[in-house]
Amino acid sequence: MKQVIGYTPIGIIRSPFKKPKGTPIQPLYGKGIQGKIEINSEFIEGLKDLNDFSHIILIYHMHLSIGYSLEVIPFLNNSPHGLFATRAPRRPNPIGLSTVKLIKIEKNILYVENLDIVDGTPLLDIKPCVPEFDLVEEIRTGWLSTPKCRTQEGESDDRFQ
Amino acid sequence: MKQVIGYTPIGIIRSPFKKPKGTPIQPLYGKGIQGKIEINSEFIEGLKDLNDFSHIILIYHMHLSIGYSLEVIPFLNNSPHGLFATRAPRRPNPIGLSTVKLIKIEKNILYVENLDIVDGTPLLDIKPCVPEFDLVEEIRTGWLSTPKCRTQEGESDDRFQ
Repeated sequence: MKQVIGYTPIGIIRSPFKKPKGTPIQPLYGKGIQGKIEINSEFIEGLKDLNDFSHIILIYHMHLSIGYSLEVIPFLNNSPHGLFATRAPRRPNPIGLSTVKLIKIEKNILYVENLDIVDGTPLLDIKPCVPEFDLVEEIRTGWLSTPKCRTQEGESDDRFQ
Repeated sequence: MKQVIGYTPIGIIRSPFKKPKGTPIQPLYGKGIQGKIEINSEFIEGLKDLNDFSHIILIYHMHLSIGYSLEVIPFLNNSPHGLFATRAPRRPNPIGLSTVKLIKIEKNILYVENLDIVDGTPLLDIKPCVPEFDLVEEIRTGWLSTPKCRTQEGESDDRFQ
């Protein structure tokens, strides 16, 4: 029998994007887009000192993602790739990951910028963004390093709906 | 009633660290540490093209983490901070996040380096590491930017057990 791990959202993400189509596919393409995060009031104490960080990492449940294929044609490309070599939203566990700019915190509301997330998305965790923690040297980014990928538009179409 | 989101592991992480104490607290402090990831064979097709990326992001369930406090004294510091301003493992949803170096893939086994994860940890997702996606400019890292934090050792003690 397969083990199932249960998580309970700690808040909800509010953004101008009401559906996946048209939502930026990464924070890079959501530059300047503002939104807010409503943290459940029971967790307010855990937000102390977070406003000293310029960027935070959001881990969230892509609640509109249903099912998956192991080979996908991702945004930014027209060739099929293995699912785990892409950031495609339809995954065995549809966990989303975005680093956003933190503008301010008022009580349990976080005001953020560079949002690439659909309105109403359940938030699972927040971590401070500390680039040095992730030891990334001499990076190669596979199919994403080809010029073709870089020039395309950074908005979702409806291929994952 | 609270919504519960259920995830099923896609694989398991194998590392030399058999318990949290002594495990590096971030990939930065696990430099050169080798381990492997056993992906469930049903997902092999999803690994295609992943070996063209030098670094991958692992999202995993910190299965040894039980309970949490909203104010913690994290590794690297001796002052209390809000939980979400830290990477402390005991969290409402104990989701771990590490960027590791991908050495090679053989069938369903990923050989990786710079591991900061305990042996036997269930893996939830893999994403390719593409630094440009996360629009991080003019970064501030709060309490982690003080020189005091930087000089301490990067191994877990037993404070979160």
